[in-house]
Amino acid sequence: MGGGAAYIAVDWGTTNRRVFAMASDGTVIESLQDARGVLSLTQDAYPAEISALRSRFGAEDVIAVGMVGSSRGWLEAPYVDVPATLERLTDACRVAAPGVRIVPGVALRNGRRPDVMRGEEIQVLGAIHAGAAPATALFCQPGTHNKWVETVDGAITTFTTVMTGELFALLRGHGIMAGMLDGAVSDGAPFRRGLRRGIASSNIAATLFEVRAGLLLDRLAPSEAAAYASGVLIGADVATQEDLKRRPVHLLGGGSLSALYAVAITELGGTPVIVPDGATTAGIHAIWSLSA
Amino acid sequence: MGGGAAYIAVDWGTTNRRVFAMASDGTVIESLQDARGVLSLTQDAYPAEISALRSRFGAEDVIAVGMVGSSRGWLEAPYVDVPATLERLTDACRVAAPGVRIVPGVALRNGRRPDVMRGEEIQVLGAIHAGAAPATALFCQPGTHNKWVETVDGAITTFTTVMTGELFALLRGHGIMAGMLDGAVSDGAPFRRGLRRGIASSNIAATLFEVRAGLLLDRLAPSEAAAYASGVLIGADVATQEDLKRRPVHLLGGGSLSALYAVAITELGGTPVIVPDGATTAGIHAIWSLSA
Repeated sequence: MGGGAAYIAVDWGTTNRRVFAMASDGTVIESLQDARGVLSLTQDAYPAEISALRSRFGAEDVIAVGMVGSSRGWLEAPYVDVPATLERLTDACRVAAPGVRIVPGVALRNGRRPDVMRGEEIQVLGAIHAGAAPATALFCQPGTHNKWVETVDGAITTFTTVMTGELFALLRGHGIMAGMLDGAVSDGAPFRRGLRRGIASSNIAATLFEVRAGLLLDRLAPSEAAAYASGVLIGADVATQEDLKRRPVHLLGGGSLSALYAVAITELGGTPVIVPDGATTAGIHAIWSLSA
Repeated sequence: MGGGAAYIAVDWGTTNRRVFAMASDGTVIESLQDARGVLSLTQDAYPAEISALRSRFGAEDVIAVGMVGSSRGWLEAPYVDVPATLERLTDACRVAAPGVRIVPGVALRNGRRPDVMRGEEIQVLGAIHAGAAPATALFCQPGTHNKWVETVDGAITTFTTVMTGELFALLRGHGIMAGMLDGAVSDGAPFRRGLRRGIASSNIAATLFEVRAGLLLDRLAPSEAAAYASGVLIGADVATQEDLKRRPVHLLGGGSLSALYAVAITELGGTPVIVPDGATTAGIHAIWSLSA
């Protein structure tokens, strides 16, 4: 890496941004993470952002993924349809400025139901490209909007978004249970009880009210409510997947939330596999290499 | 009714209050509705509120139902367990001040799952008492927290709360779909498409994201999104009831929301019956008569 960074990779999300100075062999030389997500930037702010990154990391080429390519971002990069491969994403990159490419997201445009992703696709395909997951696999990407992604021979063929994290945040921050869900969310008896209720639930809009009723009737302690509610939501989320016993679930994202999903997957008879960090930069590096 | 009001009935909710000057035969002489719900009042504000109502309506006795009897209200009136009849509610009233009684709510305290209601019980039992619904029936009370209530021989035996209205309000007001759900919600093709998706949905946290994806992929028009999302939520709510074809559903509350539930119940093969207004005052009057 004597020559310094070959290019700059940016995972540019809604509220956060992660930037990586990349060597030509795909090694991450240096990285930063900050709150300069697309919601904090106007369209005309991007050129200055790019200049600052170029000065800091000493490279010209930039490849960006995520919400930066949405209608709220810098330049809209239209979704690629499934089946989506790294090659198709590479071909569909849009040039936002000289030397700056934006990788598109993936859509289920013509299926029974619509769905979209921006940023998650590069993590899934990067994990496969790096050999950290098989080319035909089921992935789970816990977060505000959890994605369940299926791949066949290195192509994303279908996926489902579940608003589990967003619903938890809405319930915790607003509405009748605001103030009741501020406790810690971690694995333990309350989380597992919630998990079983969520797995058995036909409608979380009904099951979630049991949190409030349980508190009022002293069947749930205030300190347990957040973990129980999280269990209900994660249990119902994981229960949407019908073939959990057929093959492992490759969990992307790491952290405590993925650990809770691993518990839920195990509870349903599945086998969680935590994919090591680095999938996103592996995916971006594959795009850089394919277009070099 | 030459003698004026015999007593004052108050349906004292979280954000609103309805007050009725009642004749001794159960006729409503005069009523008012305002925003002086329990969240707008401190505990020590209630005596002055009662004085004002007595002066205005010329009666001393007051019977109040709803959240006024909760821990956030004036005086906590502990829940009555199921099976709950008007007689048991009458016996369990609490005296908040001379001449002022608060009717308790109903709880599922010891069942498989906990649930609670405050105010809805009087509407259900009042409808039966008034002869507007059979003594053994299934009721639906659309609102922020929809209640499905089953009665047997004039007693509430079980019920389920579904947070349908609250989830719609949270999604519309906050989170990623805020600003996308401000359109009109009425019966029509978008509502019915949403209804069918909600009925078939195993997890509304996944199905609701189709609203956003549908908008991004031009499969849903911006003007249709609110009705579609409402259809998803109401469809999933009504689909929690497994025996809709076995007996009619008695809809309480009237208004446009009940009309949407009637469409959903019909879609699932059930028979909606709209119960006329007046059930709440009929229930309060039964309590007044029983304790006279």
